[in-house]
Amino acid sequence: MIRAIALLAIAACATPYQGGSGTPAWVSETGSYSSPAMKSRSPIAERYGEIATKIIAHARADRGAYAKLAYLTDRIGHRLSGSASLDRAIEWAVKTMKDEGFDARAERVMVPHWVRGHEEASIIAPIERPLKILGLGGTVATPKGGITAPVIVVKSFDDLEAKAAQVKGAIVLYDVAMPPYSETKGSGYGDVVMYRGRGAMRAAKHGAVAALVRSVTAHSLRTPHTGAMRYDDAVPKIPTASVSVEDTQLIARLAAQGPVTLKLRLESQQLPDAPSANVIGELRGKDKPDEIVLIGGHIDSWDVGQGANDDGAGCVMMMQVLTTLKQLGLQPRRTIRVVLWTNEENGLKGAEAYAKDHAAELSKHVMALEADSGSFAPRGFSVESKDPKAVERYAEIAALLAPLGATRVRAGHSGADLIPLIPQGVTGLGLDVDGRTYFDTHHTEADTLDKVDPQTLADGVAAVAVLAYVAADL
Amino acid sequence: MIRAIALLAIAACATPYQGGSGTPAWVSETGSYSSPAMKSRSPIAERYGEIATKIIAHARADRGAYAKLAYLTDRIGHRLSGSASLDRAIEWAVKTMKDEGFDARAERVMVPHWVRGHEEASIIAPIERPLKILGLGGTVATPKGGITAPVIVVKSFDDLEAKAAQVKGAIVLYDVAMPPYSETKGSGYGDVVMYRGRGAMRAAKHGAVAALVRSVTAHSLRTPHTGAMRYDDAVPKIPTASVSVEDTQLIARLAAQGPVTLKLRLESQQLPDAPSANVIGELRGKDKPDEIVLIGGHIDSWDVGQGANDDGAGCVMMMQVLTTLKQLGLQPRRTIRVVLWTNEENGLKGAEAYAKDHAAELSKHVMALEADSGSFAPRGFSVESKDPKAVERYAEIAALLAPLGATRVRAGHSGADLIPLIPQGVTGLGLDVDGRTYFDTHHTEADTLDKVDPQTLADGVAAVAVLAYVAADL
Repeated sequence: MIRAIALLAIAACATPYQGGSGTPAWVSETGSYSSPAMKSRSPIAERYGEIATKIIAHARADRGAYAKLAYLTDRIGHRLSGSASLDRAIEWAVKTMKDEGFDARAERVMVPHWVRGHEEASIIAPIERPLKILGLGGTVATPKGGITAPVIVVKSFDDLEAKAAQVKGAIVLYDVAMPPYSETKGSGYGDVVMYRGRGAMRAAKHGAVAALVRSVTAHSLRTPHTGAMRYDDAVPKIPTASVSVEDTQLIARLAAQGPVTLKLRLESQQLPDAPSANVIGELRGKDKPDEIVLIGGHIDSWDVGQGANDDGAGCVMMMQVLTTLKQLGLQPRRTIRVVLWTNEENGLKGAEAYAKDHAAELSKHVMALEADSGSFAPRGFSVESKDPKAVERYAEIAALLAPLGATRVRAGHSGADLIPLIPQGVTGLGLDVDGRTYFDTHHTEADTLDKVDPQTLADGVAAVAVLAYVAADL
Repeated sequence: MIRAIALLAIAACATPYQGGSGTPAWVSETGSYSSPAMKSRSPIAERYGEIATKIIAHARADRGAYAKLAYLTDRIGHRLSGSASLDRAIEWAVKTMKDEGFDARAERVMVPHWVRGHEEASIIAPIERPLKILGLGGTVATPKGGITAPVIVVKSFDDLEAKAAQVKGAIVLYDVAMPPYSETKGSGYGDVVMYRGRGAMRAAKHGAVAALVRSVTAHSLRTPHTGAMRYDDAVPKIPTASVSVEDTQLIARLAAQGPVTLKLRLESQQLPDAPSANVIGELRGKDKPDEIVLIGGHIDSWDVGQGANDDGAGCVMMMQVLTTLKQLGLQPRRTIRVVLWTNEENGLKGAEAYAKDHAAELSKHVMALEADSGSFAPRGFSVESKDPKAVERYAEIAALLAPLGATRVRAGHSGADLIPLIPQGVTGLGLDVDGRTYFDTHHTEADTLDKVDPQTLADGVAAVAVLAYVAADL
């Protein structure tokens, strides 16, 4: 299925972009059709085909990104905003890029500092059973000793409204299953993540004392998934946590038969904002160094697992793009700037600070790309732009990635850290990958280095290196 | 792949068993070939085809086994030998079968009583990192305050021997990957489970202070798997636990770069043996009630998850076989006896007691079947017998299960609880199922009811009901 889609995308992308309609270059003088791949090449393919081949071959054979990721995950570990390990990761990234000869620096950003404490939850009636939970990032603590209350299981926000009268004094549990991955629709994450993000505030409006959400995943081995949530200042802030799929289903089965009482104890703390930083590293352009092709990932992670796929992979890919180009002696006309944003997971303060601190040069940003979907096989790019021609333009460049199967370019969300840049006219790109297993480990203890295939990680480096080089050199 | 294998098996099994060689029944008088399914049927198919069709239709549409399993798992929970929940499960099973009108009783057995206490482990050098572990069943505790020692990672028992000089005073970690499931070879469990079973005694011989084993699974979300282990009285008993695949790999990566120190704390206890029981329930035969077709599962489980697939599923399947036959008004000539053994997981005391207490009637056991591979789609049976014709004989009966795709019969291990019966001349059968995901959750917190598909569980009931009825009536 993937292959079929990729082939269609290759076919579409191989159409040379000519800035407008007209006779395609692969229709010959006599009007007979010939495959563009066989007989003719786009201007970009003509100009950059050989370089792209060289970059891809070098990057695919290289294991530098994996070595960097192994250090970041095994030696430093997870990296929540405000943590000492995030500070270490930032220091390491700056030093690593400097040691490789790049201009690199940290740009200070203040970030939220939330700390998870002891957490536990259990069913206490009609049976006693411990539950596998993870407090959501930013949750308030329960009162000392915990909360004991009946649970109301809801299947949607509409269901919550319908049961509003029963919610006062209760714990609301959102039991909404994430649809499984499909080749056509991708993951079902976007369909259900709002229950994690807004479940607490919606439940608090009706007087709930806590909100629980079924883990946002389609595959579980009793695995709770944390993630961001938001409070509404107009309603009380109530404690909130994710519950493993298995335990959510158990509670729902019991609740279908009679009253169920839960106990929840969270000892999290919101500390004063802490200093952190975005990491910047640059391969300066030889002709137009003030024009910028931005490529990035986020250096922070949740406080579980190793933050390997989310988003250690994105960070090391970008670092290795610079390394690759340097090793090949390739200096494009414009500057390629790596940005490793801080605080993507619980605040976007890094992204906001970048947009603000670099406001004066945003008009010189040719594009900005974020890789934040893991280390899996690259498939292409999502483009988010005010420019209606942007998809077509990047599709032409991405046609160079046919050896990687990464030629699929379509309009779509690019990256969370690009949100503040898009309204400023910057074209955003997201690296799309084969995401079928990404959400199995997303925001869990299982987001660890072993989930990373060194080859597909290297393929990601290859894809971004070609795209960034061509965009910076055109 | 499965389909191809199933079809081959159907073809093989459809050959009518005639007790010897000769012209197959489906070769016509003129010698022309005709498909047995189309033109002719085996004597068993002739005699029991209609009844089998009726049993299969009834059982497949029934959800009684699932309802029983929901009670056993959700209301009672996991059931380790010596636990109050195992006592409750035994009581419930006897009462349920009595309430349905069957002769049912509990037969007392003394069982080991091991209790897991607080457990924790972490890497303390060169980094600090908590580990996901589960003590192996029967492990001794660590000294109070835990054990802190360097780790030696080994890849096999041979590797242990090669590194014997370094083992004294160290924690040995067996890092042996379980091969993934394949249609031809099945799971890789048998290839590696000896490291869990004998790892501690082998390491202790060389002076190790503890033994850790990579979780016996080919798929993990940081999921530790417990299971049985044995000590050797000739060497010191050292504490032993399983470590998640992810953490095992982390330790191995670090150990490849330099010394790694671990801390392990286990507070388990071995209490005096406790009273428990096998559960027996019978549908009495109408002609030869003293001849017995035994079908069973084990009522105990490990002390994590719900023991849903291991082996709640096997127990409720057998209970529902009796229910199904009774609902259809089918009373075979011989007695069908359900046995739900206690203490399969950590002692086999139930199986031993059954063999001993029923020694006088073992010669009257026509066959004994155990289902202990989960609730997945039935594929056929493994036969373990002194009788060289047994495979052929049961293949002929299993040919009736073509609508279920459960016709594959081959020689192989039948069931752990049948081990004491086979040397006594009893023919053992194991229910084979589509086991590709069984070991993902085996002996973990994730062995929960949601992993059970009500339809494939009902299909299992159908398969065993037909086999048991025909074997008891022939």
